[in-house]
Parts: sequence; C-alpha cells; structure tokens
Amino acid sequence: MFKYQYMELAIEQAKLAQKDGEVPIGAVIVNGNNIISSAHNISNDPTAHAEMLTIRQAFSTSTLYEAEMYVTLEPCPMCAQAISFAKIKRLYFGAYNPKGGGVENGTRIFQFCNHIPEVYGGILETKCSLLLKDFFEKLRT
Amino acid sequence: MFKYQYMELAIEQAKLAQKDGEVPIGAVIVNGNNIISSAHNISNDPTAHAEMLTIRQAFSTSTLYEAEMYVTLEPCPMCAQAISFAKIKRLYFGAYNPKGGGVENGTRIFQFCNHIPEVYGGILETKCSLLLKDFFEKLRT
Repeated sequence: MFKYQYMELAIEQAKLAQKDGEVPIGAVIVNGNNIISSAHNISNDPTAHAEMLTIRQAFSTSTLYEAEMYVTLEPCPMCAQAISFAKIKRLYFGAYNPKGGGVENGTRIFQFCNHIPEVYGGILETKCSLLLKDFFEKLRT
Repeated sequence: MFKYQYMELAIEQAKLAQKDGEVPIGAVIVNGNNIISSAHNISNDPTAHAEMLTIRQAFSTSTLYEAEMYVTLEPCPMCAQAISFAKIKRLYFGAYNPKGGGVENGTRIFQFCNHIPEVYGGILETKCSLLLKDFFEKLRT
C-alpha cells in the first residue's frame, strides 16, 4: 500500500549518494510493511543503479511478487527490465526522465515484458528532480 | 578483433551453467588480446545474467571503450542497455532470441541509446542454441 514515507526514504538514499559525489538517485523496496532493501546509485559500475542494487539485495532474502519499489527517478530501460524480471508488483517513481527513462519515455519497455508492474509516476516529483538539478548545476560550475 | 575461440570460451561458460542446473548462457569480455571477464547466468537473482556479471567484473578493473563482448544468446533489453552504458565497442552473440532478445528483436534497444556497439549476431549459432534447446527439453521431461 502506497505511503509517502517510503518515497522520503528513497530521497534520503539519494541525498546519501549526493554526499558521496554520486548522482542523487535512491530506491527502496517494500514488502508489506517491511523495508527489505534500500540503495543509491554508484558511479564506478554502469550496472549499479539504485534499482538494480535494491533488487539484488532483496533477492538474496525473498521473491518480490508482492513487493513495491519506490525510486526517485523514472527507471532506465535496464532497470525497468530488471523490475519486470523480478516481478515487482508496483513501481512508484518521483521525477520523469524524458532523456533516459524507459517506462513513460523512450522505449516504454513494459510493453515488451511478460510481467508488467502497476506504475505511478510523479510522486514527490519536484523534490526528487530538484536534487538532480542541483547536482548537475554544481557539476557545471 | 573477432576470434572464434572467444565464442568457444563463452560456450564453455554456458556448459558450466548447465552443470549447475542453470540456464546455459555464457559470456566473456575481451580487451585487445586479454580476456578480462567471463561468467554464466545465475538463476537466483534476476539481474545476474551472464552479460551483467561480466560487465560488473570487468568494470572493477578498467573501462570498456575498446572491449568486445561475446555472448551465446542475443542479450535481453536489460543487458543490451548495460552494454551501451558500459560503452562496449563490439557485441558478438550466438543464438537469436525472438522471444526475449532486445537487440535484433523486441524493443531493439540500441535505437534508443547514446552509445551503440557494433553488433554481429549468429556466431556459432547452432552450437549456442542447441545447448539451450537441450536444457529446456530436459526440464520438460
């Protein structure tokens, strides 16, 4: 069941990334009322997006048929496909990603997938996108 | 530079997977004349496709701008996107995958990517696909 507090936790993860000089994107996976994994992007491995890391962590303990993912940015095609493979039930994301997203933008990958999660975009959208905007503006200056 | 021996090594990885009861798909990444990583699918983690594992291994030591990947099956969209993120120069794959592939089938993901590797499909195709056919036939009996 949707709770804002889980997106706030994903935002906390994004802020941890920012502190480490990483792109501020965070994710958590929730199963019932249990947070089963949380992570943020790591830049020295192109597969280490927050979503992939939470799926890998979560799968070490359980399957994800009833699980929900909260992530601060619309997943890219790699992560969206992994979310489908992991059979995550619901996906809540913050900011839309017209350039790199693969859910509501670009390849819209779920149309090619066997398992399609319920998708809710734009959750705490401004907060999530401001983190990214600030990060990239500071990189440029 | 293309060499059959590298696809043979990917096939050896696929055979190792089969021995472990895993789906027989193998991959290697080569940089110049150096094999920098090799892996096969692992079933208890939906992100642990052979391609993802070789990229993760390889990135711990180097970037992949000049690297070539050999994989026994056409990559799925998740792996194809990761191959693009990793900036792998050339992709050689064995069997085509009309149902789950994302390179020459389905979403054809490279059309949405910034970095597009050179792609050569059908390398030792029969050998690669027979391994998979045998595996799934045995599962059914």
